[in-house]
Amino acid sequence: MSSKTKKSSFTKLAGGALPNIPWQDEPRGNTEPVWRYDANPVIGRRFFPGADRIYNSAVVPFKGGFHGIFRVDGRNGVPFLHHGTSKDGLKWSIEPKPISVKDAQGKAMKFTYQYDPRVIKIDGTFYINWCNGNVGPTIGIASTKDFKSYKWVSNAFLPFNRNGVLFPKKFGKDFYMLNRPSDNAHTRFGDIYLSKSRDLVDWGRHELVMKAGPAWWEGVKIGAGPAPIETSAGWLLFYHGVLSTCNGLVYSMGAALLDLKDPAKVLMRSDGYLLTPEAPYECRGIVPNVIFPCAALTDAPTGRIAVYYGAADTYTALCFTTVDKLMDWLAKNNRVG
Amino acid sequence: MSSKTKKSSFTKLAGGALPNIPWQDEPRGNTEPVWRYDANPVIGRRFFPGADRIYNSAVVPFKGGFHGIFRVDGRNGVPFLHHGTSKDGLKWSIEPKPISVKDAQGKAMKFTYQYDPRVIKIDGTFYINWCNGNVGPTIGIASTKDFKSYKWVSNAFLPFNRNGVLFPKKFGKDFYMLNRPSDNAHTRFGDIYLSKSRDLVDWGRHELVMKAGPAWWEGVKIGAGPAPIETSAGWLLFYHGVLSTCNGLVYSMGAALLDLKDPAKVLMRSDGYLLTPEAPYECRGIVPNVIFPCAALTDAPTGRIAVYYGAADTYTALCFTTVDKLMDWLAKNNRVG
Amino acid sequence: MSSKTKKSSFTKLAGGALPNIPWQDEPRGNTEPVWRYDANPVIGRRFFPGADRIYNSAVVPFKGGFHGIFRVDGRNGVPFLHHGTSKDGLKWSIEPKPISVKDAQGKAMKFTYQYDPRVIKIDGTFYINWCNGNVGPTIGIASTKDFKSYKWVSNAFLPFNRNGVLFPKKFGKDFYMLNRPSDNAHTRFGDIYLSKSRDLVDWGRHELVMKAGPAWWEGVKIGAGPAPIETSAGWLLFYHGVLSTCNGLVYSMGAALLDLKDPAKVLMRSDGYLLTPEAPYECRGIVPNVIFPCAALTDAPTGRIAVYYGAADTYTALCFTTVDKLMDWLAKNNRVG
Amino acid sequence: MSSKTKKSSFTKLAGGALPNIPWQDEPRGNTEPVWRYDANPVIGRRFFPGADRIYNSAVVPFKGGFHGIFRVDGRNGVPFLHHGTSKDGLKWSIEPKPISVKDAQGKAMKFTYQYDPRVIKIDGTFYINWCNGNVGPTIGIASTKDFKSYKWVSNAFLPFNRNGVLFPKKFGKDFYMLNRPSDNAHTRFGDIYLSKSRDLVDWGRHELVMKAGPAWWEGVKIGAGPAPIETSAGWLLFYHGVLSTCNGLVYSMGAALLDLKDPAKVLMRSDGYLLTPEAPYECRGIVPNVIFPCAALTDAPTGRIAVYYGAADTYTALCFTTVDKLMDWLAKNNRVG
Amino acid sequence: MSSKTKKSSFTKLAGGALPNIPWQDEPRGNTEPVWRYDANPVIGRRFFPGADRIYNSAVVPFKGGFHGIFRVDGRNGVPFLHHGTSKDGLKWSIEPKPISVKDAQGKAMKFTYQYDPRVIKIDGTFYINWCNGNVGPTIGIASTKDFKSYKWVSNAFLPFNRNGVLFPKKFGKDFYMLNRPSDNAHTRFGDIYLSKSRDLVDWGRHELVMKAGPAWWEGVKIGAGPAPIETSAGWLLFYHGVLSTCNGLVYSMGAALLDLKDPAKVLMRSDGYLLTPEAPYECRGIVPNVIFPCAALTDAPTGRIAVYYGAADTYTALCFTTVDKLMDWLAKNNRVG
Amino acid sequence: MSSKTKKSSFTKLAGGALPNIPWQDEPRGNTEPVWRYDANPVIGRRFFPGADRIYNSAVVPFKGGFHGIFRVDGRNGVPFLHHGTSKDGLKWSIEPKPISVKDAQGKAMKFTYQYDPRVIKIDGTFYINWCNGNVGPTIGIASTKDFKSYKWVSNAFLPFNRNGVLFPKKFGKDFYMLNRPSDNAHTRFGDIYLSKSRDLVDWGRHELVMKAGPAWWEGVKIGAGPAPIETSAGWLLFYHGVLSTCNGLVYSMGAALLDLKDPAKVLMRSDGYLLTPEAPYECRGIVPNVIFPCAALTDAPTGRIAVYYGAADTYTALCFTTVDKLMDWLAKNNRVG
Repeated sequence: MSSKTKKSSFTKLAGGALPNIPWQDEPRGNTEPVWRYDANPVIGRRFFPGADRIYNSAVVPFKGGFHGIFRVDGRNGVPFLHHGTSKDGLKWSIEPKPISVKDAQGKAMKFTYQYDPRVIKIDGTFYINWCNGNVGPTIGIASTKDFKSYKWVSNAFLPFNRNGVLFPKKFGKDFYMLNRPSDNAHTRFGDIYLSKSRDLVDWGRHELVMKAGPAWWEGVKIGAGPAPIETSAGWLLFYHGVLSTCNGLVYSMGAALLDLKDPAKVLMRSDGYLLTPEAPYECRGIVPNVIFPCAALTDAPTGRIAVYYGAADTYTALCFTTVDKLMDWLAKNNRVG
Repeated sequence: MSSKTKKSSFTKLAGGALPNIPWQDEPRGNTEPVWRYDANPVIGRRFFPGADRIYNSAVVPFKGGFHGIFRVDGRNGVPFLHHGTSKDGLKWSIEPKPISVKDAQGKAMKFTYQYDPRVIKIDGTFYINWCNGNVGPTIGIASTKDFKSYKWVSNAFLPFNRNGVLFPKKFGKDFYMLNRPSDNAHTRFGDIYLSKSRDLVDWGRHELVMKAGPAWWEGVKIGAGPAPIETSAGWLLFYHGVLSTCNGLVYSMGAALLDLKDPAKVLMRSDGYLLTPEAPYECRGIVPNVIFPCAALTDAPTGRIAVYYGAADTYTALCFTTVDKLMDWLAKNNRVG
Repeated sequence: MSSKTKKSSFTKLAGGALPNIPWQDEPRGNTEPVWRYDANPVIGRRFFPGADRIYNSAVVPFKGGFHGIFRVDGRNGVPFLHHGTSKDGLKWSIEPKPISVKDAQGKAMKFTYQYDPRVIKIDGTFYINWCNGNVGPTIGIASTKDFKSYKWVSNAFLPFNRNGVLFPKKFGKDFYMLNRPSDNAHTRFGDIYLSKSRDLVDWGRHELVMKAGPAWWEGVKIGAGPAPIETSAGWLLFYHGVLSTCNGLVYSMGAALLDLKDPAKVLMRSDGYLLTPEAPYECRGIVPNVIFPCAALTDAPTGRIAVYYGAADTYTALCFTTVDKLMDWLAKNNRVG
Repeated sequence: MSSKTKKSSFTKLAGGALPNIPWQDEPRGNTEPVWRYDANPVIGRRFFPGADRIYNSAVVPFKGGFHGIFRVDGRNGVPFLHHGTSKDGLKWSIEPKPISVKDAQGKAMKFTYQYDPRVIKIDGTFYINWCNGNVGPTIGIASTKDFKSYKWVSNAFLPFNRNGVLFPKKFGKDFYMLNRPSDNAHTRFGDIYLSKSRDLVDWGRHELVMKAGPAWWEGVKIGAGPAPIETSAGWLLFYHGVLSTCNGLVYSMGAALLDLKDPAKVLMRSDGYLLTPEAPYECRGIVPNVIFPCAALTDAPTGRIAVYYGAADTYTALCFTTVDKLMDWLAKNNRVG
Repeated sequence: MSSKTKKSSFTKLAGGALPNIPWQDEPRGNTEPVWRYDANPVIGRRFFPGADRIYNSAVVPFKGGFHGIFRVDGRNGVPFLHHGTSKDGLKWSIEPKPISVKDAQGKAMKFTYQYDPRVIKIDGTFYINWCNGNVGPTIGIASTKDFKSYKWVSNAFLPFNRNGVLFPKKFGKDFYMLNRPSDNAHTRFGDIYLSKSRDLVDWGRHELVMKAGPAWWEGVKIGAGPAPIETSAGWLLFYHGVLSTCNGLVYSMGAALLDLKDPAKVLMRSDGYLLTPEAPYECRGIVPNVIFPCAALTDAPTGRIAVYYGAADTYTALCFTTVDKLMDWLAKNNRVG
Repeated sequence: MSSKTKKSSFTKLAGGALPNIPWQDEPRGNTEPVWRYDANPVIGRRFFPGADRIYNSAVVPFKGGFHGIFRVDGRNGVPFLHHGTSKDGLKWSIEPKPISVKDAQGKAMKFTYQYDPRVIKIDGTFYINWCNGNVGPTIGIASTKDFKSYKWVSNAFLPFNRNGVLFPKKFGKDFYMLNRPSDNAHTRFGDIYLSKSRDLVDWGRHELVMKAGPAWWEGVKIGAGPAPIETSAGWLLFYHGVLSTCNGLVYSMGAALLDLKDPAKVLMRSDGYLLTPEAPYECRGIVPNVIFPCAALTDAPTGRIAVYYGAADTYTALCFTTVDKLMDWLAKNNRVG
């Protein structure tokens, strides 16, 4: 049986149970691999005074509820990272001030801008990866154990880099990070690389994982989305792919399956998108036609997956699938192997 | 009487009766030269599994109903041509697989992409013109008599060319085709040329028919739309014109009247657009603000004209006019002669 | 007390009473410094036959009612200035023909295009400033006393210039004009300058007033909006600021306070926008995501301010504030001094 | 024996003897496949009053001497085609007025510009191919039998096309022409295509022959040079290849061997250049670093080949090789087959 | 007799005698309208310690010798204006420090950069025009009577402007200045405008004088060179015209004749260039292929004209002509009237 | 005494004696901080069959003579690294085949291209840094002890990076490397960064060392040249700076002094260039106007420094200075501190 049709229904999610995962059952008659939360957007515009838009943001379960690191663009248009909490992952309380990251001397650092955070838990510590404006756009890393104090770790790479995403566990002694070398503007190219580190500070052993294209929906560039999700079949990666049109770029969401041991090996990769801008909150806003996934929650016993995504660079939205549904779809729409 | 005010109400449509032409009467109080079908879009998104968007497509009457060659962009964003049928031109059944075009040896050809088809009936044969990705974007031609088997004819021109549209009858021994020389990307220029051929294979005797601009609504580029419609006054050509804004391009529809014997002569040309993006399905979608006409149906006894157009590179839509209404408007808004 | 928190509630509007100023009270629970007219847009699309869109336009009180000079883009996409009148500033009657500007010899001038007018009353004469296509895009000036006859004054500057706006009173013997040096296309930069003249014909003594950025909402370029409003605290300037995104530009409205005697001195400047595209008529249209203020009405006794702005380069809209509300907000969100 | 090393020393030039071919013996110690004429440039600057530069030009033997069609750029920088004669191919007499091309009605045509001519003799008629500015840059064709009267044949293709070069004999009933689809400026891409025609007027059956790159010396674009030279091994094609540097483009000369019967088949192609700009007249001039071959003379009995090339878009120069030398070199430096 | 052939040999130079004008007689056999000084360049590279290149500079007769304002690019590449003196206009002594320009308060001003000066004597005062970096690239004006103290006059225009050149006498109460609106980089367009002022401070009444093109040698942009030279036939203007090639721009020198009373009227304009880069010092240097005239000396009794020009943005060079020679040539190569 | 004038004549070169350093005494009357070898270029064009140009290359003393790693661009324009030897550093013998780099398994690696090598000796091992085309342009590292066998170390960084240069000794446990983040084409920006590593494989702790500009000679980008030279005053860094002109880029050489312990601290930096293209072999070639230093030899006892540089991307050239001369000059032309 070829990979194009291989049965994947026995794929198991690693990780524990998350009974209070935000969830809606698949709508009747649904033919799509993922479905939108019907009360989207989860976070609307002007969420608190001074906030203009809250979108491309990361959520993790913590202490029975949910914590998030949110990209908040102020009225001046400059984005910083804010902390928020929620009981159900749907109604959020977000702090009006950015998180304070302390350097090795315990001094609060100043940032020129911070955006598109991911939060990854490794061995009990939460690591925040974001696009950091200090010394160019590159991948900043900070850590926290309590979402109260945040320690600076490093700028992982030289500029220009975006969409850095750690794997949620170590590979032997190494941390692994997906990332996308970029340029200093609205980069018109971009492939996903894998880089390795023993200490989250010095990085090397870079490998090309996936190139943009040739499918048109991801013809311009691609970038890793939420932290890869461990499954029995491999690392499930949601990513964004970008189409070029005469009226700008369209960001859609796709999925790939990476080898458990060597995630530079791509086992499966969706031929088409999983989700593409169609809902009003995805098509209208400051940057129309953007779906940008940044975080995923999973509930291993049920196989449920909830993906948070930025919509139109304006809203935070949510969509759902199950590991079975998704892996079946991926197997049928696989263009690799 | 100057051409600017000449009476055109006696213009007759050539071609026969098409009593089942899709149709809606002009809305009361209408002041526009064309009016939209109120149940637009005719073809919505995700029309069949695997199809993302069906738009810029061509429809012809055949055997009492309607057949169409549709541009279908799959989930991977790559467009191919699909065949569809309809009894009323409104509700369509579209085949999930692209049409199979056979080469001279009867072998099914492979295509890298196919888009923006037109279908033109000449002497009982239907010719399909489209933008063909094999050997660059240029004008592919195939023929069919039954919409079951399709024969490859030629790539009419060298790259780069788009919007090739045959005239629906021969001029002596010659086929005539309107077309637009382009470049290898989102061409920021474009004029309409006329080219001639005895056999649909070798083309020459190229003439410039209409240049883009200077009116701003068509200041960037223009391209022929449906096959020219024969009338007693000349060939009626619907075409698209493109405006440049700081947020991208806007595609509107205009009209021109070409000389019956020498269609490189422009008798009338609309000073402004006929139809410009305003409806939600024209303004929101993968490429906002696009109206792209590709096919027209006519009913000679009533003078009715139905124009199919792509909307926002996402939907197929329909609008209506009559030859009288249109020719009156064109005479009043003519900027030629 | 630092400028960031200084109390501004005693600021008085200069100018007289305008009891019939268009007005809606602040909505309950409003937290924004300005609020939209709930029946926006004031002027919709296709307002009269031949008009496509009426937007970026200027309104002044005159003879108990309101007169306006409107940017009207015809169906051919080319803009010209039209005169309109209204009793309440909301329902408008607009002339289908452009205004006729006479040269020194009393001959009607021909214009290639005219757009983005402002109207400023100085010592009983109304001056119209607009972007004039004769001899490049630069600032044309004409005058009228009755909105019936219009006299040509000058092209104030060499090309390329846009967004020229006179101050509504003279400074000693001098007229002052804000303006924005530009280039010959969709300028990707732009700062506000001040220029001076004794006769509205010869201009010099140019000074840089405000630069674009570094805040992202105004990172690309800025341009003066309505004529500066005289207040006891300084000249209140509404202006537009432009954000760059991968899908185009976003135009928002900000405010600044200029020194009464030397308006090249910026006393206060909003750190973030006052109003950014959110309403459907601001986000959808020929140029999505544009708020472009061109005129303001004030009523000194009540402190009411009504701002007319172009929306999406498609509609004319209205928003409201009071001088107290605005100055308070500006003081709290000030990034200067 | 692989094509990389195949012996080619028995290759014979077709065509007759040309005992007075311009010639210099290979310099002692030469290791290059071609060698420059040591009295280059053959035609210097300001050759006659009103002429600024004479370069990219074509030469053929005729009536015991040599005739040429020369690209002459006037002091105004606009190029036209001039006729010249020479006894030895080295000292030229060039007419100060452009050639007069007559249309079908015998009327002298007007041209906006004409450049980069080739002259090809087929069945006793000389055909001139050039880049013709009438109706865009495309390939103009004219014919002459005596270099006194010139008849217009056609614009072979739609714009944009450059470097059209006919084969010097027919293939059955067909004329074949190499050509390079281009854009409307300093085209940054370009591959060589083959097109066919029965009458030199209507052209079709286009095939891609050779693509630019991947070698860097020809990484940007390539274009056919002199008319292909018939040999017993295939059509010998000199062509130009273009390198991109941070200070502009570098044009070098390469060679390929095309199949005698089906010249869309490339039998051999040089891995590196034959000749690259080094001489002062190649490196300094209006366009530094350009070698642009346009014509070749051959003497079958001796195997001698003389190639005329434009140097720095400023001079006409000459270089030499023999068919044996060249074919040996090509066999050793072949990257095809 | 049409202007194309009109006899101009009686044209007289205005201005007095300058017996020590730098001069070389026309070389025997010369067929060109101007001829180069055979000891060019007049000023070589690294003229004094700290100077890298001295080029685009202005020279005037003063007190029996010559004074100049020189563009000196330091080793850091930043240009400033330096004063120099010479007895014969050939051997120069240039001060190692930039000139000190005093503001109205007598304070020495600081400049970010200064380049491409012209010096024009009007009513006994020398005015320096240059491209001034304070507040954008625009035209700075300073005055001196003794080349010892320099007074700031104004920035004549808003940015972006270059190549501002005053006329050497007033027109009634008005100063006239030729200038070229530009953009903020290596402007790829540029026409010559005329602006007027009563006080050299406020400028207006702008008129378009000459547009670039259509001749290719001046197809990209044009700019006034030395101050216009008064003759009995009109103002003789040397200017630069710019050709675009795939390897950059080529600057040549042309000439025009402007109406004595209304210099916005062009009486004659050369169809081709007068002088184009050919000499080694014009073709090799920091910017190859640049001839940029900035100053002219005249001797009325003999009709001699000496033109100083920048060569390759690296050297100062000199060429010669006579008013008779030039006017004859211009009459024969005139493309106006 | 301020840094601008501080005496530096007691600066000592670290490193040992190199009595056979290539050398020429300073020419009499020299006023420049460095002087060219009068027999430049050291390596001419077409140095061995198959080699087109040998330039940007690195030389080190080894076993009493000199060894080099040379950038050799073949006739196909693709660069690879070749090994060469010389007794005197002037006459070279270069191997016709690229060096063979072995991976960890001892297998010879394949490279798409290799260019701009530096060779740095650290603790007895020679490290080669170059711009490596495998997995994007980034910094490849290999090591050798004998210039016979070469071991692959790593791609130090993610793409896009160029001009990576190791320091010739370790800082505690760390290797330090200067480098320049770039983009995927002819990068129009570029600053020098410092990165650190414990094993030459994983790199981090990136710091910005020097930014391009504001001086115009280095306004576009800068890049480290030879390995930093240890002196008693600090690390002496030769680097290239790039000027933008309308006809392309100009590469000159400058110098800086970095702190011995923390080389991210810039102690001195030249305000202007040390050497700028003037010699014929620097101004004419495939890329005119390029001076690109890649290697330096020093002789501590005499203070002599010989710098190898690429000229016009075509030749290898040599220039000389002494540490005293240079430090004096740098102190006088210092713009830091």
